[in-house]
Amino acid sequence: MRGTNYCGFSPPPESALPHYSARIYVTLRPSVLDPAGTAVQSGLAHMGYDNVGPIRIGKYIELTLDAENEAAASQQLDRMCDQLLANPVIENYRFELQTLATA
Amino acid sequence: MRGTNYCGFSPPPESALPHYSARIYVTLRPSVLDPAGTAVQSGLAHMGYDNVGPIRIGKYIELTLDAENEAAASQQLDRMCDQLLANPVIENYRFELQTLATA
Repeated sequence: MRGTNYCGFSPPPESALPHYSARIYVTLRPSVLDPAGTAVQSGLAHMGYDNVGPIRIGKYIELTLDAENEAAASQQLDRMCDQLLANPVIENYRFELQTLATA
Repeated sequence: MRGTNYCGFSPPPESALPHYSARIYVTLRPSVLDPAGTAVQSGLAHMGYDNVGPIRIGKYIELTLDAENEAAASQQLDRMCDQLLANPVIENYRFELQTLATA
């Protein structure tokens, strides 16, 4: 019955996996100095915003991926963060997963 | 009664304003190319993660500030983002404000 589209129902092709959207937050570990954050805080103070405390600057990564299920997507994200997206020696990461409609 | 600390109650000094914690997300506008994101996607594909879609990389900023109330804190964050933290020509920003216990 592939290719039929009665009643607006269209089964996904066999190879289609669920789509997930991920938001990844990479932050410096608390024990690591953040010179960029210090520079921004100093810049803000010079602009008159002297009521601002210490600033930490991290990365915010948005991506989509296909995986069999949420657990598999989560595992893969952990590996990707450890291997490429974050530097585990000086950075922490956390992510949020959201299921997207299957195409 | 300043300085007294009966029953664990310690009034803040007159000058103390409420503390707010802000999480700011700065992202490239959708119409702007993200070469760093493309490079990361290509890197992941070379590592075997070829089920990952387009990647967008932004900034994630954490800071604390003192302000009279939440509206004032929000207004100041808007000005700080427009003037220094984000480039409004190519970037969007959004932030979350959280009230911290007054010191």
